[in-house]
Amino acid sequence: MQKLLGKINQRIASLKIPAKPAQLYNPVTYTLSLGGKRMRPLLTLLGYSLFKKNYERALDAAIALEVFHNFTLLHDDIMDNAPLRRGKQTVWQTWGSSTAILSGDAMLILAYELLADYEPVVLKKILPVFNKTALQVCEGQQLDMDFESQKNVSIADYLYMIELKTAVLLGAALKFGAIIAGAKKKDAELLYEFGKNTGIAFQLQDDILDVFGETEKVGKQTGGDIISNKKTFLLLKAFELANKKTTAKLKLLLNEKDEQKKVAGVKEIYHQLDVKKLAEKEMQKFYKKALSSLEKVNADSKKKKVLTDFTEQLMQRQS
Amino acid sequence: MQKLLGKINQRIASLKIPAKPAQLYNPVTYTLSLGGKRMRPLLTLLGYSLFKKNYERALDAAIALEVFHNFTLLHDDIMDNAPLRRGKQTVWQTWGSSTAILSGDAMLILAYELLADYEPVVLKKILPVFNKTALQVCEGQQLDMDFESQKNVSIADYLYMIELKTAVLLGAALKFGAIIAGAKKKDAELLYEFGKNTGIAFQLQDDILDVFGETEKVGKQTGGDIISNKKTFLLLKAFELANKKTTAKLKLLLNEKDEQKKVAGVKEIYHQLDVKKLAEKEMQKFYKKALSSLEKVNADSKKKKVLTDFTEQLMQRQS
Repeated sequence: MQKLLGKINQRIASLKIPAKPAQLYNPVTYTLSLGGKRMRPLLTLLGYSLFKKNYERALDAAIALEVFHNFTLLHDDIMDNAPLRRGKQTVWQTWGSSTAILSGDAMLILAYELLADYEPVVLKKILPVFNKTALQVCEGQQLDMDFESQKNVSIADYLYMIELKTAVLLGAALKFGAIIAGAKKKDAELLYEFGKNTGIAFQLQDDILDVFGETEKVGKQTGGDIISNKKTFLLLKAFELANKKTTAKLKLLLNEKDEQKKVAGVKEIYHQLDVKKLAEKEMQKFYKKALSSLEKVNADSKKKKVLTDFTEQLMQRQS
Repeated sequence: MQKLLGKINQRIASLKIPAKPAQLYNPVTYTLSLGGKRMRPLLTLLGYSLFKKNYERALDAAIALEVFHNFTLLHDDIMDNAPLRRGKQTVWQTWGSSTAILSGDAMLILAYELLADYEPVVLKKILPVFNKTALQVCEGQQLDMDFESQKNVSIADYLYMIELKTAVLLGAALKFGAIIAGAKKKDAELLYEFGKNTGIAFQLQDDILDVFGETEKVGKQTGGDIISNKKTFLLLKAFELANKKTTAKLKLLLNEKDEQKKVAGVKEIYHQLDVKKLAEKEMQKFYKKALSSLEKVNADSKKKKVLTDFTEQLMQRQS
């Protein structure tokens, strides 16, 4: 896994990003150098490796997804007014919103440039997957923004939103690997389902860690979702289960200005209603669904184990 | 030409833009319905028609370029803080910046979706052209923004900027038509050069019309470039030719708050230095260069005449 990660970071560092105009391309280089788990490209390479050796062939498609993912972060940070990303200043904070918009646009095009080098038959297969997924990610981000002001958000709405915003890209990453390796259509679809449902599980875990993670391990102050009244699984479930009195208390807490008091108060209600356990159960449900798709994939079980070792490690992560 | 335009608008109206999330896709539909000259798709169809009948085959690629062009306008309007586009409220004004950023992203992806349906061999040829051109347009927009605060902008810098921001897309539009019609590489390149140099001529004419056009015909208040101190060919040429006294006067005018006085003052200097005539000369130089490329294209001269009838009509436009 370390070797794959090395290859990915090496390829990213070797990308021929033009030098000029500096204002346009410096933010691109900056964003890509911030690191991260490189989860999406790893999934592409692991997906490829289920069916074939020499994963180098899938490397550019893998990097395209990482570049795309970083493009979405760059634009999301403008929309969310976020000052920090991976502990560093966000692009719009350093270079201003206009440059951030335009550099993001350039990154999206650069992602397509990485796809364009594939041979015609492969290109014809991966481009529609990329397009569809990219649009879904935009839809997910829009729903996420819509939910901020929307009164009645159901848990089903929320799960659909994270499916679009986060999960489909993990599904596409695995599918990319399968397609480029020449896997059967059915296997590529099963892998997509595995990736998608694993992605939903990951996001539920992110929600849990944001509230219950240890600050040192998560690397940021926990409780951010509570402070910003983000309608996560936990909050929506709490409202679903709360009696009249608790509902009133929860509503009051949403308007609480004292952040420490707010986080402590909401956490207490989460404890009372046991929503952490319910979220973990939901998470496991999606992960199990994911695994049942993977089981059906026609590939060597040892190779599948490499993939599940990776996802399991991510499922048990503390940050 | 009217028939082609009808086909283009019909295809745009028939695009399957999803209905939901409404906040994401309504701005896309809105932007595409604002109209415009549809210059880029027309060029693709005319480029195709030089070599083959049944231009319908080039229609989706033509529309992809129009969708891309409208995406750039949508994002540019956020960056430029522009309240109006084609006499209507800009997307960011109506829906807010966040939605405008995201809807623009979705439009860029929708442009790629229109390309993805081409057969593998054609796709493999048009995708790199699209990617390269799209990146160049971003670079041009960045240079345009850079120039606002840059002190020494030369006329060569300016011409390079408009080549990237405006002209290469017209070149690519014609090249798309040629590629899809199966034209020879050399002819596709010559058409690209024709489109690119015509595009530079068009932009120079836009600069002239912005200052010297009749308000009723241009459809907007003239003098906008002067008011915003835009470093156009006219202004740069004026600074190049002005003596010490006129330079000082021009510099004073750049800081003039009274807009009418400012426009009148700068126009007077333009008259004194005859920069309008020089701009027209430059414009003709690029258009002649364009025509000399077109001459070398191996295609029926009657069909070429259809193309030059169109570009000539645009060259003589008053708005």
